[in-house]
Amino acid sequence: MAPVTIPGLLRFVTFEGGEGAGKSTQIRLLAETLVRAGHAVEVTREPGGTKGAEEIRALLVEGGAGRWQAETEALLHFAARAEHLVHVIRPALAAGRWVLCDRFADSTLAYQGYGQGLDLDWLWALRRHIVGATEPGLTIMMDLPVEKGLARAETEQRYERMGVDFHRRLAEGFRHLAAADPARCRVVDAARDRETVAADIAGLIAARFGVSL
Amino acid sequence: MAPVTIPGLLRFVTFEGGEGAGKSTQIRLLAETLVRAGHAVEVTREPGGTKGAEEIRALLVEGGAGRWQAETEALLHFAARAEHLVHVIRPALAAGRWVLCDRFADSTLAYQGYGQGLDLDWLWALRRHIVGATEPGLTIMMDLPVEKGLARAETEQRYERMGVDFHRRLAEGFRHLAAADPARCRVVDAARDRETVAADIAGLIAARFGVSL
Repeated sequence: MAPVTIPGLLRFVTFEGGEGAGKSTQIRLLAETLVRAGHAVEVTREPGGTKGAEEIRALLVEGGAGRWQAETEALLHFAARAEHLVHVIRPALAAGRWVLCDRFADSTLAYQGYGQGLDLDWLWALRRHIVGATEPGLTIMMDLPVEKGLARAETEQRYERMGVDFHRRLAEGFRHLAAADPARCRVVDAARDRETVAADIAGLIAARFGVSL
Repeated sequence: MAPVTIPGLLRFVTFEGGEGAGKSTQIRLLAETLVRAGHAVEVTREPGGTKGAEEIRALLVEGGAGRWQAETEALLHFAARAEHLVHVIRPALAAGRWVLCDRFADSTLAYQGYGQGLDLDWLWALRRHIVGATEPGLTIMMDLPVEKGLARAETEQRYERMGVDFHRRLAEGFRHLAAADPARCRVVDAARDRETVAADIAGLIAARFGVSL
């Protein structure tokens, strides 16, 4: 059966969720599955993905939790994202590759909006301006109880020191974002073993994009 | 005679204009004049002015002319500006000091809007969101023929390599901005000798803020 393609549906899959939800593991497993099925895949991450965006990332991830105001942080994330879109994401999609991205614009909405209290309309306006028509075809929201995620998170990063309340607002934010955009977003229970989660995600990809995996 | 104060008029004076117009010299001379008249003065610059904003400045001023997209550049400028406003400009004004700033939001409008072609409405929306009520009480637009400014400019910076056409659009941009906001902006002919320019600027300050200099 020929693949069913939905016009305008980009083969751009983003993985979102709090710390320790297993995003990078699942991206690696999905990339392997897609490659085995004959697809070309680009794996990338945010903030970062280009030389300039990685320099902006360094400003964001180094230093104390109060290093930047939330507005500054949101602007830096969208600055890095603008570079990533132009230099990596759009060229890869145009060349026919799938793009699997570890965090994207939903993270800015969740962290700086729901988590740090910035105006959501302002963040959405920035998102519309910078992302434009390059919204993901599918966003996998990796859902995990907050305590479990924080216990799992391997690296000591700024957000991991921001307290459990912050991470609860974050988790609620991701659930709001998913509920507001049901065509694009799928919530995946990330508390299960990784093979079960990977099979779930492969099934979601197959259903959304009409491919056999 | 007691100083005439205009409610809401901040003693925040920004200096704008193309390269080589003598902004930093005139800021120094005005600061000396204000201090001699008994005022407390904070001299600062953009992009920069705080530790974090100076790190963002380093990303902006290093590298080739095409290093960043114009959108990215605008977002980085407003990110640095958000830090500068919160950590330097607003505290200094609240403490009763004058703030003299070498470049501010008009530069982003001129460089990334008029010069690089970004949507002016988008830039104004960012400006309103980040600057809010902290718009300068007075903006001195240092006007100089483009060739003269480029010949005068001492340092080799990215924008100085962007060609004469770019600098013409920039000069036109600053004139548009001044014409659109006549209460705030004054255009000063910067081609004259520095003492004449300094006397002009001192007169504009005295008239706008009702102080004797």
